[in-house]
Amino acid sequence: MRPARPSLPLLIGRKPVLEALEQGSGIEKVFLLRTATGEEVNRIKHLAKELNIPISQVPVEKLNGMTKAMHQGVVAYASLLDYVDLQSAIDSVVDKGETPLFLMLDGVTDVRNVGAIARSALCCGAQGIILPTAQSASLTEDAIKTSAGALKKILLCRIPSVAQAIDVLRLNGIQVLGTQMKGSIPVYEANLNIPTCIVMGAEDTGISKDVIKRAEQLIRIPMAAQFDSLNVSVAAGMILYEALRQRALSK
Amino acid sequence: MRPARPSLPLLIGRKPVLEALEQGSGIEKVFLLRTATGEEVNRIKHLAKELNIPISQVPVEKLNGMTKAMHQGVVAYASLLDYVDLQSAIDSVVDKGETPLFLMLDGVTDVRNVGAIARSALCCGAQGIILPTAQSASLTEDAIKTSAGALKKILLCRIPSVAQAIDVLRLNGIQVLGTQMKGSIPVYEANLNIPTCIVMGAEDTGISKDVIKRAEQLIRIPMAAQFDSLNVSVAAGMILYEALRQRALSK
Repeated sequence: MRPARPSLPLLIGRKPVLEALEQGSGIEKVFLLRTATGEEVNRIKHLAKELNIPISQVPVEKLNGMTKAMHQGVVAYASLLDYVDLQSAIDSVVDKGETPLFLMLDGVTDVRNVGAIARSALCCGAQGIILPTAQSASLTEDAIKTSAGALKKILLCRIPSVAQAIDVLRLNGIQVLGTQMKGSIPVYEANLNIPTCIVMGAEDTGISKDVIKRAEQLIRIPMAAQFDSLNVSVAAGMILYEALRQRALSK
Repeated sequence: MRPARPSLPLLIGRKPVLEALEQGSGIEKVFLLRTATGEEVNRIKHLAKELNIPISQVPVEKLNGMTKAMHQGVVAYASLLDYVDLQSAIDSVVDKGETPLFLMLDGVTDVRNVGAIARSALCCGAQGIILPTAQSASLTEDAIKTSAGALKKILLCRIPSVAQAIDVLRLNGIQVLGTQMKGSIPVYEANLNIPTCIVMGAEDTGISKDVIKRAEQLIRIPMAAQFDSLNVSVAAGMILYEALRQRALSK
């Protein structure tokens, strides 16, 4: 099934996209003609990679479907939100004297779930959301609306991969907890008072192998009934609540 | 804004509706022409009231819009779910040796929120959901789908009013906790190990005055950030998780 086209403004053509990239932000995703070459194209690829902006290499039909204007093999979604570098985000939290609480979305592609999770995260005192660019959703008006504006108030960090994010978190002394239906400990046995990043996986396939292999612990929400799993945004809400509870009681 | 018409099968005409009511179940809601009179109409009103089935008295245009068939002033939505009497539901929980955990939805009219809450409730060990008929949503395919089938596995109790539900709960020794943004205690300070019914209110207006006046305690989910409230299905999930956590630890 082809996903609905996100309602994001477009940047069309090599020069507009390149200029936006050179200003360092403002782009959600770049679509590049598979066969496009040349100096400007190389520079676009290089800058997008440096800024952790996802690039999708597509056939010409995709670009023609996005716009009727002359696209020169390059179209981009303009971003409605600001992204920050993960290391800068961690630094800003630590500088304020707060204990980091981050959430990483590993394959959560439904924009409404992303929005709902951001809303809960902000309410529960999480400072940032980490979005690995490889699988992340483009954050549309719909996501912002579902978040009740929280996506504009919380730190949003793009990073190329889950593995790279975990490396940065570890170097900063932040524990990484993967969430899994069969996690080894119930979430209330995990210590969430220390610097923590919680990883939520896709509703169907769960967290990726990289997280399972590299996480300090795999946590679960215990289930009273033999039943299907929880909705991912509700599950995230429960874990965020548990962090809030532990942190409130330790004050 | 006119709400989308629920995708529920219709019963049309006095006899079909009356027969369904006489069999004791299977009806979600009755629509009655405002000016309808007669013995059958009185019997329909009487039985619907006895069975806690909502009746909506409407102008003829509404009925004509629902069906092109001869409706004789009476149309009903057939129910996709089974409802039980609140007292019977409590009895069946107690008979199994379980500690009652009920959820009452006081003005939660979005069927997807009702579905999501049912899914969390079943996962967290709640046995039943109480739906005061005055404001409750008709439970459509959409609600059942959002609940991942949980609405078919949990006890569903219709009751005319919140006040009447609270009376029945009290008589059975079940504490009633209202949820409010400004509730007097954080939910983790409430004792959820004893027989409990948690009341969730409408997203915009919150719980009704009857609950505020009659509840044993008003609980809140503490908030880390100065921000808008949580989504009602996420908030319900957090409170249900807290009940699950307390009950797991007390075993």
